[in-house]
Amino acid sequence: MNESSSPFDVGSGAVKQPYKKTLTSAKENLHVEKWDVNAGDVIPGAKGWSVKKSTLHGGKQEGVDIILVDNGRLKFTVCPTRGMGVLSVTMDDVFLGWDSPVKEAVHPNLINLQSRGGLGWLEGFNEWMVRCGLESAGHPGVDKFTNNVGDEATMELTLHGKIANIPASEVEVVIDPEPPHRIRIRGRVDERMFYGPKLEMQTEISTVPGSNSFRLADVIANHSADEQEFQIIYHANFGPPLLEEASTFAGAVERVTPFNEHAAKDLAFYAEYKGPQLGFIEQVYCIRPKPDAEGRALIMLRNKARDKAVSMVFPVSELPFVTLWKNTNAVNEGYVTGLEPGTGFPNNRRIERKFGRVPKLPPGRTYSAAIDFTIHTTAGEVSQVSNRIEALQDGTHPIVDDRPEDKS
Amino acid sequence: MNESSSPFDVGSGAVKQPYKKTLTSAKENLHVEKWDVNAGDVIPGAKGWSVKKSTLHGGKQEGVDIILVDNGRLKFTVCPTRGMGVLSVTMDDVFLGWDSPVKEAVHPNLINLQSRGGLGWLEGFNEWMVRCGLESAGHPGVDKFTNNVGDEATMELTLHGKIANIPASEVEVVIDPEPPHRIRIRGRVDERMFYGPKLEMQTEISTVPGSNSFRLADVIANHSADEQEFQIIYHANFGPPLLEEASTFAGAVERVTPFNEHAAKDLAFYAEYKGPQLGFIEQVYCIRPKPDAEGRALIMLRNKARDKAVSMVFPVSELPFVTLWKNTNAVNEGYVTGLEPGTGFPNNRRIERKFGRVPKLPPGRTYSAAIDFTIHTTAGEVSQVSNRIEALQDGTHPIVDDRPEDKS
Amino acid sequence: MNESSSPFDVGSGAVKQPYKKTLTSAKENLHVEKWDVNAGDVIPGAKGWSVKKSTLHGGKQEGVDIILVDNGRLKFTVCPTRGMGVLSVTMDDVFLGWDSPVKEAVHPNLINLQSRGGLGWLEGFNEWMVRCGLESAGHPGVDKFTNNVGDEATMELTLHGKIANIPASEVEVVIDPEPPHRIRIRGRVDERMFYGPKLEMQTEISTVPGSNSFRLADVIANHSADEQEFQIIYHANFGPPLLEEASTFAGAVERVTPFNEHAAKDLAFYAEYKGPQLGFIEQVYCIRPKPDAEGRALIMLRNKARDKAVSMVFPVSELPFVTLWKNTNAVNEGYVTGLEPGTGFPNNRRIERKFGRVPKLPPGRTYSAAIDFTIHTTAGEVSQVSNRIEALQDGTHPIVDDRPEDKS
Repeated sequence: MNESSSPFDVGSGAVKQPYKKTLTSAKENLHVEKWDVNAGDVIPGAKGWSVKKSTLHGGKQEGVDIILVDNGRLKFTVCPTRGMGVLSVTMDDVFLGWDSPVKEAVHPNLINLQSRGGLGWLEGFNEWMVRCGLESAGHPGVDKFTNNVGDEATMELTLHGKIANIPASEVEVVIDPEPPHRIRIRGRVDERMFYGPKLEMQTEISTVPGSNSFRLADVIANHSADEQEFQIIYHANFGPPLLEEASTFAGAVERVTPFNEHAAKDLAFYAEYKGPQLGFIEQVYCIRPKPDAEGRALIMLRNKARDKAVSMVFPVSELPFVTLWKNTNAVNEGYVTGLEPGTGFPNNRRIERKFGRVPKLPPGRTYSAAIDFTIHTTAGEVSQVSNRIEALQDGTHPIVDDRPEDKS
Repeated sequence: MNESSSPFDVGSGAVKQPYKKTLTSAKENLHVEKWDVNAGDVIPGAKGWSVKKSTLHGGKQEGVDIILVDNGRLKFTVCPTRGMGVLSVTMDDVFLGWDSPVKEAVHPNLINLQSRGGLGWLEGFNEWMVRCGLESAGHPGVDKFTNNVGDEATMELTLHGKIANIPASEVEVVIDPEPPHRIRIRGRVDERMFYGPKLEMQTEISTVPGSNSFRLADVIANHSADEQEFQIIYHANFGPPLLEEASTFAGAVERVTPFNEHAAKDLAFYAEYKGPQLGFIEQVYCIRPKPDAEGRALIMLRNKARDKAVSMVFPVSELPFVTLWKNTNAVNEGYVTGLEPGTGFPNNRRIERKFGRVPKLPPGRTYSAAIDFTIHTTAGEVSQVSNRIEALQDGTHPIVDDRPEDKS
Repeated sequence: MNESSSPFDVGSGAVKQPYKKTLTSAKENLHVEKWDVNAGDVIPGAKGWSVKKSTLHGGKQEGVDIILVDNGRLKFTVCPTRGMGVLSVTMDDVFLGWDSPVKEAVHPNLINLQSRGGLGWLEGFNEWMVRCGLESAGHPGVDKFTNNVGDEATMELTLHGKIANIPASEVEVVIDPEPPHRIRIRGRVDERMFYGPKLEMQTEISTVPGSNSFRLADVIANHSADEQEFQIIYHANFGPPLLEEASTFAGAVERVTPFNEHAAKDLAFYAEYKGPQLGFIEQVYCIRPKPDAEGRALIMLRNKARDKAVSMVFPVSELPFVTLWKNTNAVNEGYVTGLEPGTGFPNNRRIERKFGRVPKLPPGRTYSAAIDFTIHTTAGEVSQVSNRIEALQDGTHPIVDDRPEDKS
């Protein structure tokens, strides 16, 4: 690249064009094995940030693509091969992610979602943020569908659906031509079949150089001529340092419901975490967040000392439900909690449908969902967010259901 | 290649050898990533035709091989990785193929045939011509088999079997040394396992330079020491321009039977097509073609104006049954019809067996099946084929069953 | 490599370091496509042995790694991609292996273990030595497990488990710095998942240059914080020349039990083999070997002339059970016998558990299993081993159960 002029300049007086690099394209028959770009390559004189694409080798990760974005302060790794999931995020001494028993970024070629009674998804599960969906999300089990002769038939849904194990068909890096030169990783994942869903997810994971935040913005399109059910849950998973004994979930909440009787037992402490405990059985709480005046939910996970946290902001019109998954099992089992905004809760789709939480997309229409993530690294910042949450809650008490929903 | 002499010359007076190029060989431990040959490389001074092998990249098609044959007039693309299926054919303004909701040539690594209740095959289904078989073809569902301890057991057959999702083990290009220098793409696909079928398919898809036709000739071998059931259906699929409102199927027919009650309702119009219609449920007609004096069936799909058509000729001794699959659903759902010569109809194998339509191969024996495809691009040509069909029908009326077979 | 000095020399007076070459490493993001080393590259002036790594291409073996070890007399081929199985062994005119109906080293990407009612494993089965395990081994069928909400659930186990279809994550070649310069192929295969087993297998397959023997030594580790059931069966398979009409199994035996009624019928001849016979239904015998004073079992397969044999020695504390699998079916069906030391017999795990043959590993603990294989190529050698076996049996008669175990 000619470093003496900006790649955005397309001639005197012209509107600047964004910098674009295609990394994967089924359309263009393209797969870039290795590539990187630095700030100075794009903005003359700039420095600090970089984007680096590589292909993993060895074992179960052979051929898996990853893209490491370093905004100069915050780093995250996107995995196009695993449905544009985000493997981990780091900033200073905060790490978003967890230590899963699954150690590699497993290629979808090796995943059989139907394995172990529909739990095969768990053989690749180690991302910081993995999407559940699109045809279905949630627990495995029988649900109905329309088969190829137009009859209602049943099929065994597999845990959390397919999207996390579908390689992206189109992947590109885009840098805004104007300051603050936002860095955007874009990808398209197709969950399309004949006599089945024709869903497409366009995602953009982006960050401003030097900032402590990033944004995930997805657009799900229904390319069918008919309406189509879909589900999406953003399964964001956290281990230490944000998860530890006495770390807490915080959020303005309208209502909280235990997922099952086992969760109901510890309802009073749903927002507090325990240390690792062998044999801990997951406890799940179903939360309706209370939005601000602009309709945005605000939730946070903060460490015990309340000097490290991650906060998540998203429109409740797009993601009205949050699943709080507490799995404070022994470290080797996967000591982890999930904060999971979604279009529903992680029941099997037939149950979600019963409760009216399986949206339908009309033909040719799209559904947008975006989440802003911010990492906080001082007591002051954490306290500020805590105060915003308290202000949002505004002295009201959330409805607390002491029993789970009747799913029978 | 030395262009000053023909590669066929092996010395003065010797018999000319065909030109051969091996593209894939498990035996020779070989996979050619990229390769092409032009007429002039093989026949000094010749021009117009070419063969081009490439490997696809990006998304679900990463690592998928395709071979594009251009005979100077007619082009077709073979996909060795997907069981030597044919992705599409073009000649002038005729296109054989369809616009499936599945947009990539999906690598079999990513296909789980058992997905969605045995309908996983539909996640890769977008070929012009895809073979169904070999151990089984047809609808998913339970059938019996002999298990590894010699007991009769049951297994869930998956839609249309495995052959379309097995990469070819041996692939070569052969050019005849003598005029008209027929171009032959050969491939071997193994459907072999322990305690199961030991079937092998050798296919040759060939064309004469400059012609408007091509031939598909398969030989299925049973390498077991025991007899072996098998099934094959040539699932040839067509969208526009041959499929459109008022386009028609034509063929000399002995008998036609609706596949089910839904097809029976529109029996009178079985040979006529509708335009795209959202919610159209597939209608399937089971046809016994009436052969000519040499035992050859002749069927055709022709557009509304009857100036574009494809015709198929094949021995009824090899392929006695034709399935006519009408799926004139909305364009985005896959507006498509299948003309499918086969050893049977697409019922589950246990039903086909009941009706005596599951052939058995003795040990060490082979079964041959060949189809000649011709593309017609003028009203005159189409009319000529129509007349041949009429002559074959010879004033006789086909038996028309107003009820489907009793499959109970 | 500088051939003038030994790579073991790390300086005057220093302890010699082993020669090491990493071929695959998920940790180091490494996959070596092609590599070889000869004796003289490692030991100045040495010759005769070599190690050669290559990657297979074509058909179902595309991308499969193999490592060929030639100790100067005996050769074996390890397949890291297929769970570090051993494809075949040759020495002089002895061949360990068999002619399976499956002709390629099939990539696990193409294997669906759940295919054909849980018999998908058979679509890749052609190794000389394939491991069955680790979460489960043996026949497919329903067994219980603990699911992700802590409930006891059931799942369909698939034939012989997953380990043979998991690519090794770490593979290296190690040569001892001191004579006799043992050649070691090491690999690590992870069978790890969330809400499931966290098992790891470290294997070393090694041989001394010029020798007629090699050793397989595995260490299975439980990385869970909880105890974990596991199973392993070393499924070593033999066709001609060791298997032929009137070839025999020999071994010091404490007890032999037919696997089922069909095997019971021919109990008296359990140690003798028939020639290939179409329609032969497998007969399986469950053997408790009688160990020597050091606790080691000794078993052998010897040809009819008793001038060719393979013997296997292993501690019964590690591998207390031997399955003798006789499958003397027609050659094209797979004429083969298995001598299979293991932690149990090949019943479904729920039956093995009932008989107390499913060991559990405490958290953080390992289980070791090693087998020494020796190839014998003269009547004298075979007779010597036969005599050792007779001496071990020491005039005692094994317990012979005329009925199978009650598995109901």
